[in-house]
Amino acid sequence: MTQAPTEDDVLAYFDTLSNWGRWGDDDELGTLNLITPAKRIAAAELVRVGESVSCAWDIGGPGAFSAPGVQRMMLATGELSMSEFRSQVAQAGIDPNRLAPDRRDDDRSSGAGDFLGVAYHGYTVTHIDALSHVFWDGRMYGGRPSSLVTTSFGATKQGIETLFGGIVTRGVLLDLARLRGEDWLKPGESVSPDDLEACEAQHGVHVDEGDVLLLRTGYARKVREHGRDDVARVGRAGWPAACLPWFHARGVAAIGCDTAQDAMPSSYEHVRSPIHSVRIVAMGLWLIDNCDLEALSQTCDRLGRWDFLFTLAPLRWVGATGSPANPLATF
Amino acid sequence: MTQAPTEDDVLAYFDTLSNWGRWGDDDELGTLNLITPAKRIAAAELVRVGESVSCAWDIGGPGAFSAPGVQRMMLATGELSMSEFRSQVAQAGIDPNRLAPDRRDDDRSSGAGDFLGVAYHGYTVTHIDALSHVFWDGRMYGGRPSSLVTTSFGATKQGIETLFGGIVTRGVLLDLARLRGEDWLKPGESVSPDDLEACEAQHGVHVDEGDVLLLRTGYARKVREHGRDDVARVGRAGWPAACLPWFHARGVAAIGCDTAQDAMPSSYEHVRSPIHSVRIVAMGLWLIDNCDLEALSQTCDRLGRWDFLFTLAPLRWVGATGSPANPLATF
Amino acid sequence: MTQAPTEDDVLAYFDTLSNWGRWGDDDELGTLNLITPAKRIAAAELVRVGESVSCAWDIGGPGAFSAPGVQRMMLATGELSMSEFRSQVAQAGIDPNRLAPDRRDDDRSSGAGDFLGVAYHGYTVTHIDALSHVFWDGRMYGGRPSSLVTTSFGATKQGIETLFGGIVTRGVLLDLARLRGEDWLKPGESVSPDDLEACEAQHGVHVDEGDVLLLRTGYARKVREHGRDDVARVGRAGWPAACLPWFHARGVAAIGCDTAQDAMPSSYEHVRSPIHSVRIVAMGLWLIDNCDLEALSQTCDRLGRWDFLFTLAPLRWVGATGSPANPLATF
Amino acid sequence: MTQAPTEDDVLAYFDTLSNWGRWGDDDELGTLNLITPAKRIAAAELVRVGESVSCAWDIGGPGAFSAPGVQRMMLATGELSMSEFRSQVAQAGIDPNRLAPDRRDDDRSSGAGDFLGVAYHGYTVTHIDALSHVFWDGRMYGGRPSSLVTTSFGATKQGIETLFGGIVTRGVLLDLARLRGEDWLKPGESVSPDDLEACEAQHGVHVDEGDVLLLRTGYARKVREHGRDDVARVGRAGWPAACLPWFHARGVAAIGCDTAQDAMPSSYEHVRSPIHSVRIVAMGLWLIDNCDLEALSQTCDRLGRWDFLFTLAPLRWVGATGSPANPLATF
Repeated sequence: MTQAPTEDDVLAYFDTLSNWGRWGDDDELGTLNLITPAKRIAAAELVRVGESVSCAWDIGGPGAFSAPGVQRMMLATGELSMSEFRSQVAQAGIDPNRLAPDRRDDDRSSGAGDFLGVAYHGYTVTHIDALSHVFWDGRMYGGRPSSLVTTSFGATKQGIETLFGGIVTRGVLLDLARLRGEDWLKPGESVSPDDLEACEAQHGVHVDEGDVLLLRTGYARKVREHGRDDVARVGRAGWPAACLPWFHARGVAAIGCDTAQDAMPSSYEHVRSPIHSVRIVAMGLWLIDNCDLEALSQTCDRLGRWDFLFTLAPLRWVGATGSPANPLATF
Repeated sequence: MTQAPTEDDVLAYFDTLSNWGRWGDDDELGTLNLITPAKRIAAAELVRVGESVSCAWDIGGPGAFSAPGVQRMMLATGELSMSEFRSQVAQAGIDPNRLAPDRRDDDRSSGAGDFLGVAYHGYTVTHIDALSHVFWDGRMYGGRPSSLVTTSFGATKQGIETLFGGIVTRGVLLDLARLRGEDWLKPGESVSPDDLEACEAQHGVHVDEGDVLLLRTGYARKVREHGRDDVARVGRAGWPAACLPWFHARGVAAIGCDTAQDAMPSSYEHVRSPIHSVRIVAMGLWLIDNCDLEALSQTCDRLGRWDFLFTLAPLRWVGATGSPANPLATF
Repeated sequence: MTQAPTEDDVLAYFDTLSNWGRWGDDDELGTLNLITPAKRIAAAELVRVGESVSCAWDIGGPGAFSAPGVQRMMLATGELSMSEFRSQVAQAGIDPNRLAPDRRDDDRSSGAGDFLGVAYHGYTVTHIDALSHVFWDGRMYGGRPSSLVTTSFGATKQGIETLFGGIVTRGVLLDLARLRGEDWLKPGESVSPDDLEACEAQHGVHVDEGDVLLLRTGYARKVREHGRDDVARVGRAGWPAACLPWFHARGVAAIGCDTAQDAMPSSYEHVRSPIHSVRIVAMGLWLIDNCDLEALSQTCDRLGRWDFLFTLAPLRWVGATGSPANPLATF
Repeated sequence: MTQAPTEDDVLAYFDTLSNWGRWGDDDELGTLNLITPAKRIAAAELVRVGESVSCAWDIGGPGAFSAPGVQRMMLATGELSMSEFRSQVAQAGIDPNRLAPDRRDDDRSSGAGDFLGVAYHGYTVTHIDALSHVFWDGRMYGGRPSSLVTTSFGATKQGIETLFGGIVTRGVLLDLARLRGEDWLKPGESVSPDDLEACEAQHGVHVDEGDVLLLRTGYARKVREHGRDDVARVGRAGWPAACLPWFHARGVAAIGCDTAQDAMPSSYEHVRSPIHSVRIVAMGLWLIDNCDLEALSQTCDRLGRWDFLFTLAPLRWVGATGSPANPLATF
C-alpha cells in the first residue's frame, strides 16, 4: 500500500516532478502539451451517444449580489417598452433623444443587457486556474518570478489568455464516492493512488497520458442537500500529496474536482496546499476547481462508461489568473 | 436573384418564420432543439486532424479598465511574497494575523487572483445572446412578456443558464470576404442568400439542419489593421433581412459573425435590427456576436475544409441575458 | 399620551402630511427647502469648540470584498517600485514601455490607486436616500411616476445630484438610549413623540424648522459588541408612524438614525415601512440611514450640548438614488 | 522675481520641506494637523451669508458606464410596480415569493437602488488623495515603506479612513484665471509664488496657516465649452515646483485645484510630478484634484470675498488611497 509522503518527500517533489524546461524555456502551457492531435482525434471518437453534460455549477442566483464576489447587474430590461419610456420621460420634461438617441417614439423593439462580475477563485464558482495563479518561493511555473503578476497589469506572463485554444481531449471520471458506496466523502478524507487504481478497476477505465482526470467526492450533492461546509473549520475531501507522483507518471493533462482540490487540513507544517503548489508551480498541471459532477456521475453510470470527450474553453481574458468555465463532457 | 424584402415582408416574418410553440409552450432553447444526438455524433466525426481554433477575441488588455465596461482587477499578486508582506506589516505595528490569518511568517507559497467584470453585449467582446436579450412589442421568444426580465432579478425566464449543456454540433464557415476576394467587406455591405449559396459552392460545403453557421466579413482583420469603425456613422457589414427565410429553411441552429450581425444601417424605417429582432424573438435562433474568424479562415483554407466540430459552453450565469464565450472549432 | 395611529390614519398621512407642490411643481429638494440662509448662518454660530465628529461607519475592511456589495480593489500598489517592475518584465522579455509608457527605468516615484464600489442602500453603509429611492402607488415625491427611475438611465428625476450643494444646517441629537438608561434599544422598540419631547427636555434642546434630527438607539454600539441583528427575524428599533405628524409640525429638514429608520416589524398589514414611504414620498423628507452616533453621543454628553453644525455633501452622482456619506457634526 | 528651482533644488525639498516626524512618528494626518480648534471656530465665523457652493463635478451621466472607470448600475427601479411584477412572474409559473419574499401581491410600495463604482483617481472625478497615494523611493509620508499598500489589503497605513473626521477649516480661492484676465490658463501654464501673492493682493485675502488653498485655472470652464484636453499631449496648467516652499512657509493644510495639480510637462528629467511627489510624500500635504471652481469663482466675485468655510468629509473607506468627494464652500 502507498505510504503517505513525508514533508521532505513533498518538498523534494518540487524537483523530482518538475516539468520546468520540459517543453522549452518559453512554455506557458505545461501539461497541456501532453494533449496531441492524435489524442484529440481519439477523444472525439468517444462521442457515440450524442449527449453533453455540464460539469459546472450555476453562477449566482436571481439577486444582483447573490454570493460573495458574484454580481449580475442589469443595464437594460424589458420592464418598460421603448415607447412607454419615451412617453414617460417626455411628460417629465426630459428630451428622450438626449437619453436614447436614434430611437423612435413608436419603437417596437427593445432589449435587455447586463454586467457580469466575479471573483471566481474561491469556493463557489467552477473555474480553471491559470499557471500564474500559484507561486512557490516567489516563482511560478517555469521559474519565472511571481512579481510578473502585478496589480496594475495582471499576469504579464502565463495569463489565462495563453490557453486561447481551450482544452479538447479525453476526460475520465473517477467516482470515489461511488467506489466507497457513500453519498459523499467526509471532510478531510483523502484519496490515495491505490484508491484511484481501485476505482479504475471498478469502472473499467484507465487514465492515460493527455487525459483530463475528474475526481468526484460527492461534495456537490452534499452542498445541495446540506449547504456548504465551513472548510476552514472542518476541512475538505480531496487529493493528498501522495497522488502527485501518480499524476506525473500517468501524464495527466489537467485535473478537475468537485472540491477545491487539496485534501485539507494538510498534514504538513510548511506545505499548506501541496496539490496546488506542486501541481501548478512544479508540474504546470492545470486545475479545474469546484466542479459539479453529479449529473456526470449519473450519466456515466447510466451509460456504463467513464470516459468521454472533454471540452473547456476559458474566456480569453488578458492577464487573468484563471477563468470561470463551464466544462462539458460529451458522450 | 433574390429580391430584398419590403418592410411589410419583414414584419410578416414575425409570423411566417415563427417557431413559437414548435417545441412546446415551455421551450427556452429555440433552434438549438434542432441539434439532435445524431447531429452531435456526426459533428464529432469531423475531428480528423486534431486541431482546435478559437473564434473569440482576447478580452481587455493589460490595464484594469482596458475597454468600456471591461474590468480585470487584481485581488492578490506575486509582487510581495507572504513572508515579505508579514515582515513589513509587523514592522509597521500591524498584526499580520489580523490580515492574513493561518499563514506563516516563513510561508513559501503565495498566490494571485482577480475579479473579472464585463458588460459583454456591445462591440468588442465575443459573446452569445440568450433568448431573453431582445424583445418585440414587449414579447420575447415564445410570447413571454419582456417584463420577466427585471432589474432586480435578471431574466427570470430564458436566462443564459437555460443553455447549461452548451452547444456541440457541426459548424460551417462561410467566408464571404474570401468569396469576394476582399480583405474585408465594406461597412453597410450585406450578404444575400445567393451569396451564401455561391459561397457554399466555392467552399464545397452545405449548411444543414442543426448547424452553427459562421459568417466571415473580415472585420476582425480590419480592426487589427485599422482599429474599430464608428459603426453609428459608417454602418456595419452583416446579414440583411433577406437571409431570414434562408436560415429558417435550412434549419440553422445558431449563427456567429465577426460583426454584431445586422447589416447597418437597416433599410427599414421601423425595423432597426431585423436580424436581431426576427431571429431572436420570432425564431428563437441563437446569435454569437463579435467573433474573430481570422484564424478559423486560415485554418479552413489550409485544410481545404469549411466544416468542423463546433463547441460553445456559456457561463451558467443565472438570469443573465447572454455570456461572454470562447467558441472553439475543432478539425 | 400619543395614541398609535391606525393603518387608515397612516394612509391618510399621504394626503395630510403631503408637501407635493408646496415649493413648486418642479421641486426636487423637498424639506431641504426649509433650510434658509439665516438657518445656515445660525448653525455656523454653533461652532464654538472647534471639534468635528463623524456620524458614519467605516466602509468595508481590509479585504477587497469585505461586506456584501462593498468592494475596494487596488489598481496600483506600492509593493514593487517602478524600477523593480521595469527590470522584472524586461528580463521576462516584455517591453516595459508597452505596459507603462513614459516612465523611466530609474523612476523614483510610484503611486497607488483603487476602485471603490458599493451597493450602499442596505444595512451596513452610512448613506443618504435621494427622493427617487422610494415610491408609493407608482409615484415618487411630487407625484412624478416611478418609471422615471429606469434601469438604463437611473433616476432621470430626483437623482442625488439634485442635492449638489449639500446640507449645511443645525443638527440635533436625541439620544433615546441615554434617555431610557439603556445601552441600546431592543429590536422592535419604537419611539413616540412623547419620548422625543421627553428627550428634548432632558437634553435641554428643541428641534426647530430646518434642523437635521438624529436619533440614537444605540444600535451601533450593539453591532460593535455583539454583531448585527438578523433584522428580518428580530426586528429593528426606530421610528413608528406616530412620529410622522411630529416631523411635519416641527419642520424637520432631514432625519438620521443609527438603524435603517423604520421600527420593524410594522404593525400595519399594508404599510410595511411607513417612515420610508410617507417621509420620502409624501413629505419629501430626506433620510440618512445607518449612522454611527456613538462618538457623537459621547461628545454631546461631554460638552453638555445636543446641537451642532451639521454638514453632509453627497457625491454628485448623476441618476443615483442616494449616496454613501460621512456626515459631520461640528461643535 | 522668484527663480524656478533646479532639479537639484527640487530633490533637496524632500529634506528641507519634510514634515516627517513633525507631529510624531505615528502621525497619519500630515498638514491637517495645522487645523486647530481655534482655526475651525474662526472658519465657521466666515458663514455670514448662508450660502453653500459645491466645488465638485457631477460624477458620470445617465448611462451605466458613462466615463472610464465610472459605473452606476441599478439594482431596483420604478419601472414595474411590485404588484405588476408579482402578477407577471406568477403568470409565467414562477413563485413570486421565491424572488421577493415578504412582499404582498397588493403591495403599494416599491423602491429603487443602485451600485456605484469608481476608479476616482484620474482626470474626471473630484477626489481627495490619501497620504498613501504617492511614493518616492519606495517610501510614503512619514518614511513608511510603500509596500504597506498591498493588493490584497489596500493601504494598511494612511488609508483615507484616517481622515474620518473630515476637513473643516477656512478656505481661500486664488483665481489665477481672473487675475490674468483669461477664461482659462493655457495647458502647461504655471503659477509662481509671485502670482499667488499678486492674486492675494488683488482679491484682498491672505493665505494663512491651516487654510485650504484652492487654485482656479479655469479648466472646468474649458472642459464645459471645449471638452477635455489630451493632457499627455498638450500638458496641463497647474502648480510648478517653485510653489512648494511657499506652501510650506504659509502652512497650507490642503490644496485643491481644477486640474490634477502639477503643471505639466514637468521641466525636470527625473521628477515627473514634483507637486504630487514632494507635497504628499515629504510634506504630508493633502491634495484635492479635479475640482470644479466655476460656481465658486462667480460667488466669490459676486460677494467680493475670497475666503469661506471649507468642508470636505471623505468616505471612510478602509484601506482606500483617497475618496471621491464633494467639497463645500459656505459663505
